[in-house]
Amino acid sequence: MNYDAMFQSALDGLHADGSYRYFAELERRAGDFPKAFHHGIGREVTVWCSNDYLGMGQHAEVLAAMHKALAETGAGAGGTRNISGTNHYHVALEKELASLHGKESALLFNSGYLSNWVTLGTIAARLKGCVVLSDASNHASMIEGIRHSRAEKQIFRHNDVEDLERRLKEIPADVPKIIAFESVYSMDGDIAPIEAFCDLADKYGAMTYLDEVHAVGMYGEHGAGIAEKLGLSHRLTVIEGTLGKGYGVVGGYIAASAPLCDFVRSFGSGFIFSTALPPMIAAGALASVRYLKRSQKERDGQQRAVAYMREALDRAGIPHVQNDSHIVPVMVGEADLCRALSDELLTRFGHYLQPINYPTVARGTERLRLTPTPLHTNEDIDEMVVALSTLWQERQLKRSVAA
Amino acid sequence: MNYDAMFQSALDGLHADGSYRYFAELERRAGDFPKAFHHGIGREVTVWCSNDYLGMGQHAEVLAAMHKALAETGAGAGGTRNISGTNHYHVALEKELASLHGKESALLFNSGYLSNWVTLGTIAARLKGCVVLSDASNHASMIEGIRHSRAEKQIFRHNDVEDLERRLKEIPADVPKIIAFESVYSMDGDIAPIEAFCDLADKYGAMTYLDEVHAVGMYGEHGAGIAEKLGLSHRLTVIEGTLGKGYGVVGGYIAASAPLCDFVRSFGSGFIFSTALPPMIAAGALASVRYLKRSQKERDGQQRAVAYMREALDRAGIPHVQNDSHIVPVMVGEADLCRALSDELLTRFGHYLQPINYPTVARGTERLRLTPTPLHTNEDIDEMVVALSTLWQERQLKRSVAA
Repeated sequence: MNYDAMFQSALDGLHADGSYRYFAELERRAGDFPKAFHHGIGREVTVWCSNDYLGMGQHAEVLAAMHKALAETGAGAGGTRNISGTNHYHVALEKELASLHGKESALLFNSGYLSNWVTLGTIAARLKGCVVLSDASNHASMIEGIRHSRAEKQIFRHNDVEDLERRLKEIPADVPKIIAFESVYSMDGDIAPIEAFCDLADKYGAMTYLDEVHAVGMYGEHGAGIAEKLGLSHRLTVIEGTLGKGYGVVGGYIAASAPLCDFVRSFGSGFIFSTALPPMIAAGALASVRYLKRSQKERDGQQRAVAYMREALDRAGIPHVQNDSHIVPVMVGEADLCRALSDELLTRFGHYLQPINYPTVARGTERLRLTPTPLHTNEDIDEMVVALSTLWQERQLKRSVAA
Repeated sequence: MNYDAMFQSALDGLHADGSYRYFAELERRAGDFPKAFHHGIGREVTVWCSNDYLGMGQHAEVLAAMHKALAETGAGAGGTRNISGTNHYHVALEKELASLHGKESALLFNSGYLSNWVTLGTIAARLKGCVVLSDASNHASMIEGIRHSRAEKQIFRHNDVEDLERRLKEIPADVPKIIAFESVYSMDGDIAPIEAFCDLADKYGAMTYLDEVHAVGMYGEHGAGIAEKLGLSHRLTVIEGTLGKGYGVVGGYIAASAPLCDFVRSFGSGFIFSTALPPMIAAGALASVRYLKRSQKERDGQQRAVAYMREALDRAGIPHVQNDSHIVPVMVGEADLCRALSDELLTRFGHYLQPINYPTVARGTERLRLTPTPLHTNEDIDEMVVALSTLWQERQLKRSVAA
């Protein structure tokens, strides 16, 4: 058996269809974000695709909290949460996250992926006969968690209240049900009809599981996400979030009732058997969550940058998807073109973003996905739009009607 | 539907059978390990169950590297590895890990759990018709990865060469096969017959997947694990390790051929869709790996402490399992007794360790699991053994024959 040949053959397939991923080797520089040094081309670039949406990864309060905890507690947690790995900072952070979302409890995970995978995988597997109703655009971590549970899954049409209700109606009342969806969808930036889904959950006796990873820190008066912004936090059974992205550090969590969190804590294999996040990571996340609870500046700055970029794109006639979030998808529609544009943006103009191709998005909807942050200046944005416009001109690409 | 009542009822079951887990809230103090402050009882304790096996979590070189990278690069990675999250430190660490194990490549994950789950889950799912031969004592992360793959699984008797061969013989030659096992098993501390398993792999055309998480940093001239110690690294297809435990930080990895690592990098959902480890975590792990490549002091110190503890336990007649590793299981055999002993060790003597009960180990084999580190002094060990001996005396527990 030549195993390497089998692996190589699968990789050859990715090369052939243009979906092979090349990683850009960057050097982030605290204080200079969104600028970074790009080792591949040996120069400084402006980063347009980071999930450090608010630049909290370089925030002075976050870094100070991490330096302090690193000096005090050391590098790692020293164990799983059960076996010597629960530190004071983990406990404090879980309390803070519960309070942020108005829930009884919260539970930390080593990544957002794990929080979705473990929570859905554990609950759906152990609630006897459970049916999971999953939005068609849900993130891979939710899909894999549901798949892992081996519970019955029904995929409802993306953000479609009617399709969801049609399905709920047909499931017997005494069958446990979970409606799993996201608030902000990462690729189109569109937002779920959370209230309508909660109404259906009440009507048909379902739990609601809301992934807010592209919203926490960024929406709501205290940064608790879209559910907070809409005054709906109390109606969700589980709110899942990340300590990366808006909060700028790393890790994931759920906030929910005490029995639910305790249940996942007690039965979730991926939680039980993982060495805990380092205490200084929890300390950094805690500082970030607390800071964004009280500061509006970053949220306002992000909204400003996003609005400014949309207007600039419209003026230049660069086609992009309208939505109510901070995600600006510039539609391209061809994998090779998408890669060629991002290559030219990088090498000629010093703008770094990854082409978003199949299988991350459907074929024909390939795109450049821009996430302007409060730290992107109007000048940064103008430069990016000029670069895009130049490429659109040179390649005679279709302009949007708004132009 | 009262979902919370369902969760609570499952939790009640854990309370009833004594397997409900109470987390100890600790405060690690860099420089004082293995001492820590225990918030539950409000005093300093000696920790005996940490997986910071060599105390690298407080090593000056590791902490300095992390402070430096934190100041330079900030708190987080800023994205998944593909979308702006690959930093210079990730690349350097992957090169170092590949070199450590004498492999072409290595791949980082956010946790050891994820590295097993993603790698086995991806390879076994995508190698058509693959059969996984899994040691009966494998860790939950391997079991869940194999389960997730939906590949055919055969469980062979723990460390049993004959049973493995009997099974391999019956699988057609043209079927892809993976033999998945660990080097040091965490609960008994016993070690796999790695060479015999590699011989079988050669004979029957199987891949070998070796989990070295309880060995890396601690065994072999450069800390590459048991495979290095036995001169077998080149015979393993995949070596999986952790950057927690012996290396004292957090994260997991695999080291293998370039096509295999690229395959998992390209198809592993749990890798692709996770925000990368913070660069400063990679920097700390890199410092730890490099330090333990050249320093024998910690490995020698660990061996000294383990040997000293075993002798002291033998003199006191405290029954423990002999093995060739650093794990010292003190057998108790009853869940309630196991918890009572650990409670008394904590509250009366200031020694913290978690009782190891079902389902982590089989009923009837409940135990206290001690992991002496180079930083446990002979005095620490003597105090612990006196405490155990006192409890054995008071409760008239069975002494070992060696006493």
